[in-house]
Amino acid sequence: MEEIKGGVTSPKGFKAAVTAAGIKYQGRTDMAMVTCEVPCVCAGTFTSNVVKAACVQWDMELVYSGRPMQAVVVNSGIANACTGKEGFDACEATAKAVEKALGVPFDTVAVASTGVIGMQLPVDKLTAGVDAMAGKLETGENAGTEASKAIMTTDTVNKETAVTFEIDGKKITLGGMSKGSGMIHPNMCTMLGFLTTDLDIDKALLQEALSDVIKDTFNMITVDGDTSTNDTLLIMADGLAGNKKITEKDNNYNLFKEALFHVCRYLAKRMASDGEGATKLFEAKVINAKSKEDARTLSRAIVGSNLSKAAIYGCDANFGRFLCAMGYSGAKFDQNDVELYFESTEGKLKVFDKGVPLEFDEDFAVKIMKAPEVTVFVDMNEGSEEATAWGCDLTYDYVKINADYRS
Amino acid sequence: MEEIKGGVTSPKGFKAAVTAAGIKYQGRTDMAMVTCEVPCVCAGTFTSNVVKAACVQWDMELVYSGRPMQAVVVNSGIANACTGKEGFDACEATAKAVEKALGVPFDTVAVASTGVIGMQLPVDKLTAGVDAMAGKLETGENAGTEASKAIMTTDTVNKETAVTFEIDGKKITLGGMSKGSGMIHPNMCTMLGFLTTDLDIDKALLQEALSDVIKDTFNMITVDGDTSTNDTLLIMADGLAGNKKITEKDNNYNLFKEALFHVCRYLAKRMASDGEGATKLFEAKVINAKSKEDARTLSRAIVGSNLSKAAIYGCDANFGRFLCAMGYSGAKFDQNDVELYFESTEGKLKVFDKGVPLEFDEDFAVKIMKAPEVTVFVDMNEGSEEATAWGCDLTYDYVKINADYRS
Repeated sequence: MEEIKGGVTSPKGFKAAVTAAGIKYQGRTDMAMVTCEVPCVCAGTFTSNVVKAACVQWDMELVYSGRPMQAVVVNSGIANACTGKEGFDACEATAKAVEKALGVPFDTVAVASTGVIGMQLPVDKLTAGVDAMAGKLETGENAGTEASKAIMTTDTVNKETAVTFEIDGKKITLGGMSKGSGMIHPNMCTMLGFLTTDLDIDKALLQEALSDVIKDTFNMITVDGDTSTNDTLLIMADGLAGNKKITEKDNNYNLFKEALFHVCRYLAKRMASDGEGATKLFEAKVINAKSKEDARTLSRAIVGSNLSKAAIYGCDANFGRFLCAMGYSGAKFDQNDVELYFESTEGKLKVFDKGVPLEFDEDFAVKIMKAPEVTVFVDMNEGSEEATAWGCDLTYDYVKINADYRS
Repeated sequence: MEEIKGGVTSPKGFKAAVTAAGIKYQGRTDMAMVTCEVPCVCAGTFTSNVVKAACVQWDMELVYSGRPMQAVVVNSGIANACTGKEGFDACEATAKAVEKALGVPFDTVAVASTGVIGMQLPVDKLTAGVDAMAGKLETGENAGTEASKAIMTTDTVNKETAVTFEIDGKKITLGGMSKGSGMIHPNMCTMLGFLTTDLDIDKALLQEALSDVIKDTFNMITVDGDTSTNDTLLIMADGLAGNKKITEKDNNYNLFKEALFHVCRYLAKRMASDGEGATKLFEAKVINAKSKEDARTLSRAIVGSNLSKAAIYGCDANFGRFLCAMGYSGAKFDQNDVELYFESTEGKLKVFDKGVPLEFDEDFAVKIMKAPEVTVFVDMNEGSEEATAWGCDLTYDYVKINADYRS
């Protein structure tokens, strides 16, 4: 597997376009469209929030119906959540505009939105945006990059990546983009993520691979504990790489899953480190837990705690907060088994040893914690399972961004 | 029932004292002792955090053993959590110092600590503190007030209250104090709370009343979602009011429970509004939910969401965030049944009506939200159960306080 510069337009057959539709933001692009020259096998995972945005409901119907997917239209600025029937009508109008402009059946068009909840989308601007984009769809790396920028809200950097790997002597490409900075606590998948590949694969296996991979990637990040109404991760596979179609969980399936894991983890970590107001990536690695589920629960609790996040921001080695978060996570364990360390590129420092707090060098602790990526490393000494979760620090800017988001 | 000025020393038989033991803070009192002239029937509720402080383990043993309680010693500054055997030894040394100074059996002495986790208590300072306090125990309102101040950490105001009510023609008094400002997301009870009464009541009924009342008082507040390692709520009843002992759930029991609810709700709300960095009390009232548990879950999710809390701080009527929090709470409901309002002393404004966002007057919304107590009022229209939860806004100061708590 090789990491390459690129994103959703890197695999064969995919094009993208963007436009400044003026939906809410001014002076920037706020719509993106990704299309494929042939109908694609698709899979998706969606928010577990009971309050699902209209576009999430639209995409779930499409993915679960078994129909192919051939285009995705995304807008930023307004989330199309809590918008009733009018919101659902906006999804349909968008898809029908794609059908009219490109001849792609409207019921193979996915739609996704991100932004303010409880506000209606201006349908005329959406459909005009689709018309504008239809005329300038492009292949090539730059088109994908522009798409990853158009879908940003409070994100400060765009998130995209691509990898290539080989199956049956054929080069397969997998690309992806995602966005998300606040209201990030994915519980099925993340805010918005779009993956494309030219692999030929059975739909059920594509879904299974995606559903499995998100458990240790997008579902292991958190910015603020708020599971969005709009979380959507879609993958389209067009089969144009010409490999023998993957129809069972053989070695080729595993090669693909490895590539998928790599791309999803990259995008997930980028989202965590670009959390609203964040100054650093905060990683929690839990090893030797009783079960995989315990390891995930414990590591997520550590990066999810406001007090832990504030301590990471302040470079305060206040390790009791991390133990406290583990304690209320729901996982059962004995504090007398636990060892806890701080770790970064600057070094590794043990601060808690099986129930007993250690004396430690505060200056060294601060040095470790000043690094741009800080890990809390926990050895549970109770089993053999491990998991890693990613978050970010809690800063003044998080409050600033969210105390007046709508204006 | 009548609310009176007072606290833990208001009921007959109770005394308190404080001292500046220099455990961690300088230039302020940091230890309090509450004693009773006779052994008391007692009850308690404790944190559900797996990582329980040494003092919580000490008190649980005492309360569940069936032994009476005759004194409580509290220190602020260091939490005595994650301290292994040395921490437990500190509890015993404190209790034994009380036995030596006052002749009260050490195994009837409760201890409680609050402050930094993972740091050992200086036992010599603790026992010297007990000796100093033993010589100046006092009855009267002022002693209780001083005790409520000595147990503060990041609290900005002390929290105490008392009520009187009548049973069998006897005046019963119930007083209480509590502390807590950060790491507040009680799950069994709150940070530290101490209640005293001169009521004569059976121990099992005292425990049942306490366990029941906390469900809609202390367990309905949150500051930051972090369930502490030290949550402890204790009640001591000395029977000196001279009423006929309460031994069944009769009208007298209900009168007491009503008073207990009043005191616990008062202290809980005071803790929420004094949350770290808070500028206002944030209340969520959910009515017509399918079940009581749903109503509690939904209201707690609203006040627990970082994004909701930041919107309350910014007076931003971004109601989608409240619906989003309800959606990921775990309770099942249909967004098309929900009505949502903002409410305060300035008025009431409907912003969401059964799945549809309403146009509303933004200036009026801001006026409502600028009040010192803001309520998000939600009618689920799906049942008949209701609940209220309390929290506070998320501010720059919360981050500031917690980015460098230890220094």
